[in-house]
Amino acid sequence: MSLRIITTGGTFDKQYDPLSGQLVFGHSVLPDLIARARLAEPPAFEALMAIDSLDMDDSHRQRVLQACERSPQDRIVIVHGTDTMRETAELLGRASLGKTIVLTGAMVPCRVDGSDAAFNLGFACAAAHLASTGVWIAMQGVLFPWDDVRKNRAAGRFEAAR
Amino acid sequence: MSLRIITTGGTFDKQYDPLSGQLVFGHSVLPDLIARARLAEPPAFEALMAIDSLDMDDSHRQRVLQACERSPQDRIVIVHGTDTMRETAELLGRASLGKTIVLTGAMVPCRVDGSDAAFNLGFACAAAHLASTGVWIAMQGVLFPWDDVRKNRAAGRFEAAR
Amino acid sequence: MSLRIITTGGTFDKQYDPLSGQLVFGHSVLPDLIARARLAEPPAFEALMAIDSLDMDDSHRQRVLQACERSPQDRIVIVHGTDTMRETAELLGRASLGKTIVLTGAMVPCRVDGSDAAFNLGFACAAAHLASTGVWIAMQGVLFPWDDVRKNRAAGRFEAAR
Amino acid sequence: MSLRIITTGGTFDKQYDPLSGQLVFGHSVLPDLIARARLAEPPAFEALMAIDSLDMDDSHRQRVLQACERSPQDRIVIVHGTDTMRETAELLGRASLGKTIVLTGAMVPCRVDGSDAAFNLGFACAAAHLASTGVWIAMQGVLFPWDDVRKNRAAGRFEAAR
Repeated sequence: MSLRIITTGGTFDKQYDPLSGQLVFGHSVLPDLIARARLAEPPAFEALMAIDSLDMDDSHRQRVLQACERSPQDRIVIVHGTDTMRETAELLGRASLGKTIVLTGAMVPCRVDGSDAAFNLGFACAAAHLASTGVWIAMQGVLFPWDDVRKNRAAGRFEAAR
Repeated sequence: MSLRIITTGGTFDKQYDPLSGQLVFGHSVLPDLIARARLAEPPAFEALMAIDSLDMDDSHRQRVLQACERSPQDRIVIVHGTDTMRETAELLGRASLGKTIVLTGAMVPCRVDGSDAAFNLGFACAAAHLASTGVWIAMQGVLFPWDDVRKNRAAGRFEAAR
Repeated sequence: MSLRIITTGGTFDKQYDPLSGQLVFGHSVLPDLIARARLAEPPAFEALMAIDSLDMDDSHRQRVLQACERSPQDRIVIVHGTDTMRETAELLGRASLGKTIVLTGAMVPCRVDGSDAAFNLGFACAAAHLASTGVWIAMQGVLFPWDDVRKNRAAGRFEAAR
Repeated sequence: MSLRIITTGGTFDKQYDPLSGQLVFGHSVLPDLIARARLAEPPAFEALMAIDSLDMDDSHRQRVLQACERSPQDRIVIVHGTDTMRETAELLGRASLGKTIVLTGAMVPCRVDGSDAAFNLGFACAAAHLASTGVWIAMQGVLFPWDDVRKNRAAGRFEAAR
């Protein structure tokens, strides 16, 4: 029941750059976070890209799809920016890969006090092990099917779409 | 699909006491940790006891059982010390309550750098939503059935017992 | 030998806003940070403004000067953005208030992993107690006189100007 | 005006051991903490011993004295357990080394939430630069001369002795 964790960046993986005063991407925080989780079976880890999900276009999403297709593991967690997580989930969902793919992210970067990142990663990993084949979004303690979720940006939360 | 989180203490909930220089119990860290997780549906929370699981006797375990019996929620996460987590899980498992009960804990206290607590809580919450009726132990990214798990204390990890 | 700590905001005091994805100002982190320092004699604390120092104009600096003038404490630490810390220090220095005033800040916000904020506050508090009357900038383990310091923005550090 | 930082262990440097459930000593936290402080002039760092100050005897204190004697830097910060910090300070003080030596420590380990360690290190570093020749204890925002300080263990704080 082995697992692959793929990061694409997003708020989850943003870090502070003292020179610019901005939140940017550097080395992914995932290897540290995975080590702290003390997993019995270390997951495969892939830093696919490091990008704000608002900057993702079709070619980025195709790369995510290809990474899922070629994954030898059938259970995949994808760390992704929240703003277009639904769009990537839809592309993966329509591809019907026969794998269990769970997208998650964070409302507060992992490296910032009060982050939801570690909780969300734990939630997503359990969902990847336990949910049926298909594509899911794991945020705020809910596992949404890819075709029944939207981000309410004004409220800063995910909701069922229907 | 609402959730109850019950803490009994354990390493997860230990805090540093500057006067004694020891790790002790104070106010549970769970309310803070739950707030950070930004759950769409806030769980019921119950600070049942604050105790090292090595100090638990039958009367403590009966109180845990009673808390599960009277819980109006059918999905329950119990934060528990790791040393006798299996024993409490067995008592709950034999009681056949018809609920999904997931015990979790931490190898490093939530308030200490590098803790696995937030990941484990996320993992346990997803398991409580997704696993079938019964009693489970969620540690180190694995969901163990209550009757097939043991703690390997020398190695500091949980393993399948059979 | 009592102390006043005044915050004006700056990187030190920035916090993450999940809705905008930006670092913004909220309640100051200073009361928490001061509590953690377990000071024998609690300092007076004043949240004068919450502003990026690049957004400071003469009227803001006049308010900082007035806060120092009316301070009943003769030893003052000012938390300030690093970009125009020197300009504010110069205004205060030329005013010759007869007090010991130490400006400090942070290269990484207090609420972000790896911050220099707590160290800098400790350094500035000691400098406020020990340095002679005048205006000083305490950054990166150095106490600069107000008239011999500049920020090297490309390198992200403070240097002697002469 | 270069600086030497020597650690002897103490609460400041304690870390959590998941196997024993105890706070123990491992690699010192000081190199990380010093890196975060972004010092303009990196201090010399020496991990002299890693010991609870209640376990210190005369031979340990002689080693601390020798480390101060042979230090090419005249400004020294010593990280030390709080319980016998005064005793070590007295030995160093009576030796009249002609250097500025500041002992500091922490009431809460650096690796535990809410620690005073980073603040105290900053305070001690400034004191080492600014205080006159002699031996000092820097705790809780106060710089005590070595011959006028005691630890009030019941209250968990340092006080003037006279």
